[in-house]
Amino acid sequence: MTVDLTNVFQQIDGDYDNLKELLREAVAIQSVSGDPSKRDETIRMVHWMKEKLETIGTVCELADLGTQELEGKTVKLPPVLLGTLGNDKNKKTLLVYGHLDVQPAAKSDGWDTEPFELVEKDGKLFGRGSSDDKGPVLCWLHAIRAAQKNNIELPVNVKFCFEGMEESGSVGLPELLEREKDRFLAGVDFVCISDSYWLGTKKPCLTYGLRGICSFFVEVTGIKQDLHSGVFGGVIHEPLQDLMWVMAQLTTVDNRIKIPGLYEQVAPLSAAEEKTYDDIEFDVAEFRDSVGATHLPTEDKKTLLLRRWREPSLAFHGIEGAFYGPGEKTVIPSKVIGKFSIRIVPDMDPEEVNRLTVEYLNKVWAERGSPNVFKPRPGHSAKPWVVDVNDSNFLAGARAMKRVHGVEPDRIREGCSIPITLTFQELTGKSVLLLPLGAADDMAHSQNEKNNKWNYVEGVKTLLAYIMELGSA
Amino acid sequence: MTVDLTNVFQQIDGDYDNLKELLREAVAIQSVSGDPSKRDETIRMVHWMKEKLETIGTVCELADLGTQELEGKTVKLPPVLLGTLGNDKNKKTLLVYGHLDVQPAAKSDGWDTEPFELVEKDGKLFGRGSSDDKGPVLCWLHAIRAAQKNNIELPVNVKFCFEGMEESGSVGLPELLEREKDRFLAGVDFVCISDSYWLGTKKPCLTYGLRGICSFFVEVTGIKQDLHSGVFGGVIHEPLQDLMWVMAQLTTVDNRIKIPGLYEQVAPLSAAEEKTYDDIEFDVAEFRDSVGATHLPTEDKKTLLLRRWREPSLAFHGIEGAFYGPGEKTVIPSKVIGKFSIRIVPDMDPEEVNRLTVEYLNKVWAERGSPNVFKPRPGHSAKPWVVDVNDSNFLAGARAMKRVHGVEPDRIREGCSIPITLTFQELTGKSVLLLPLGAADDMAHSQNEKNNKWNYVEGVKTLLAYIMELGSA
Repeated sequence: MTVDLTNVFQQIDGDYDNLKELLREAVAIQSVSGDPSKRDETIRMVHWMKEKLETIGTVCELADLGTQELEGKTVKLPPVLLGTLGNDKNKKTLLVYGHLDVQPAAKSDGWDTEPFELVEKDGKLFGRGSSDDKGPVLCWLHAIRAAQKNNIELPVNVKFCFEGMEESGSVGLPELLEREKDRFLAGVDFVCISDSYWLGTKKPCLTYGLRGICSFFVEVTGIKQDLHSGVFGGVIHEPLQDLMWVMAQLTTVDNRIKIPGLYEQVAPLSAAEEKTYDDIEFDVAEFRDSVGATHLPTEDKKTLLLRRWREPSLAFHGIEGAFYGPGEKTVIPSKVIGKFSIRIVPDMDPEEVNRLTVEYLNKVWAERGSPNVFKPRPGHSAKPWVVDVNDSNFLAGARAMKRVHGVEPDRIREGCSIPITLTFQELTGKSVLLLPLGAADDMAHSQNEKNNKWNYVEGVKTLLAYIMELGSA
Repeated sequence: MTVDLTNVFQQIDGDYDNLKELLREAVAIQSVSGDPSKRDETIRMVHWMKEKLETIGTVCELADLGTQELEGKTVKLPPVLLGTLGNDKNKKTLLVYGHLDVQPAAKSDGWDTEPFELVEKDGKLFGRGSSDDKGPVLCWLHAIRAAQKNNIELPVNVKFCFEGMEESGSVGLPELLEREKDRFLAGVDFVCISDSYWLGTKKPCLTYGLRGICSFFVEVTGIKQDLHSGVFGGVIHEPLQDLMWVMAQLTTVDNRIKIPGLYEQVAPLSAAEEKTYDDIEFDVAEFRDSVGATHLPTEDKKTLLLRRWREPSLAFHGIEGAFYGPGEKTVIPSKVIGKFSIRIVPDMDPEEVNRLTVEYLNKVWAERGSPNVFKPRPGHSAKPWVVDVNDSNFLAGARAMKRVHGVEPDRIREGCSIPITLTFQELTGKSVLLLPLGAADDMAHSQNEKNNKWNYVEGVKTLLAYIMELGSA
């Protein structure tokens, strides 16, 4: 039996000022988890959210994660907010995950407005965290509040797991969840995460796959300290010179990976799966313009999407130990560490990717013939994730999207990793739905992060519809 | 007629406590010219030296250089100390240059002692500036004071030019000297600079050549902002990937330059000049161990010295715009600027080196075939410098060295640039002698800078002998 939500949706539209005010308060709390000087603010943000969840009747607890070492200091980790709303044994239970911390931001980075002041302009709500992930987290709150105002009984119990360290590697969370497997996580039937993005700006989608990652460090040394390039230039095997040469052997100009054996591990693409790409709404020219490129390595829609979601890719991030400031510095760096990572997809195995990559690096190093010391090593890795788009959780999400937006959502993958997705799936053994609410151009992690007013309001409706649809899931 | 200095030299040996005390005072003044918070100390150092020069009868003036913009602040430039000692029209005039500022230093950088406290240990005087350049500057003062104590008349008038911005690009000094060409610099017959080093630790030398430099910036862009490597990895022509590839085309593994036309510009090596390298005392194994390398691109003494002094070299300094911190950051940088420089030697012309280098970079970029935007551009440049080792100024220096050390000094070049050398030569039209007093292992600019007690004391004697020798130059 489907509850008619027409009136509730109208009320949500009319309640915009309150929705915005709460987002303004949340954005104003500078919960930058990567900055030890902002750690108190990050903790305050968790407490702020606890109070909000309590206003809708959630029983909350704060799970202490202890401390961490950060920039040479011991700092307290933000607690994880665990909430339980409803405990009806006749209902199924939905677990909602979100995060309350944000990436660093400063107006001097190139923001048009103060990043921690919510500014509405042309239908956009600018502010750090407006979209990643404070906006979506608040959508859950608003959705349930709207149901309660209208005396609509939720068909499921809802549990909340909101953390304050997502932007800094979710330190401590996987271990906490492991400990909570048979208590807080017991009895969970569905998991939903709203912390990703639509493929474009207009059509909603559901996300059924994520790439994993293997990070690498390539260290080259050979002289005991930085040297003056005038005094020593010409008679030294420079570590940086070697490093750049080695890094240049990893990819082609079109960003295809030259490491033998990697592409061979990718799961074969069935004709049926390939066909799903035909229907996906994606404008290559718009994508190209959005990144500011004149050409892309491929401009065929299907090939491009396959490369983003379903094939490995290798990206170069930078070099530690070399001069990085503006201007000139005539030094020969003594120890440099190149950083790159490979995104991996099913059926690639991180261990095997690490092995093949290090083997290839050692092989090209041998060809280089430098007497310097070469130490390639894997960093952190995360497995890829892919699920069945036809399970009841996904279908409930799809029906909710259709109810709010009037269209069947695209089923997409993401090129990035959200490692906690796999953790929830493994610990609960249940379906995890990635239900994105924000538009592709929300600029998470970047300057001028925003959430469209429209996406924010429709997001409240979508989450409410999803909860209601779970009643028949 | 040669004045016997035996007794004076003995007095100098006996005066060590006073020599050390003055160096202690000088080192304690934290005249770090690159640090705006230390600017007052740098100015105080100039005033301190002015008082010392006045104690030997020098008429001093402080030439105001105005202000500079440093780290967003307008700060006063340290004045240049111009001193005149003696104005006898029947005598020739020596101009002495030195600098009173130092490189930054902190114990936390890895010093064994407090860098601004002079510490004597095992015959070494540790402290920032002990060797570069406060020690040598004080040697001039001690040398003249020793002559005066013994009623020895100096055979030349002496002018001093001591600046406080050498470690920060000598801001304002070339322009001041240009203005002083027909006043303070008028009538100068010889110039002497003690701001370089011996080739080893035992045998003294005179320096007759310096390499010049051409700096380069190679900018690659192509996307309008940094991108998430998960979301965009695989479908972008990465600027950093292109940059490292291009940089890797500049040199061979043995650090030879691949830019066509550069080596061809080098002045031919005559048999006579080549023969001078046979006598130079230089231990390749000791040099290799001092830099901590296991192998060098060449381990032949002559070839190695030629490559350091008499051939161009290309060194890589770093990359601006890429991730440089510790750990991992999964970003695709949008704009990266590679930094490298080429040391140049006679008869290389900076303009021609710039032209050939940019031409070669554009050529390899065309081979790369990337759609990104490539902007190579030259940075600052300085001409090489070389002089006649048989002019009267050099011969006076050589005789002085022999008087003090009992051996004929090696004639060497330096691989680095001291641009003010060329400025003095061009403005006075006279010979500039680089007369190093410190040992090769003094660690100027690095941790644990020191001046050997022996070099410091013998340096006083050497400068006194040099002044006296100029009487017959």
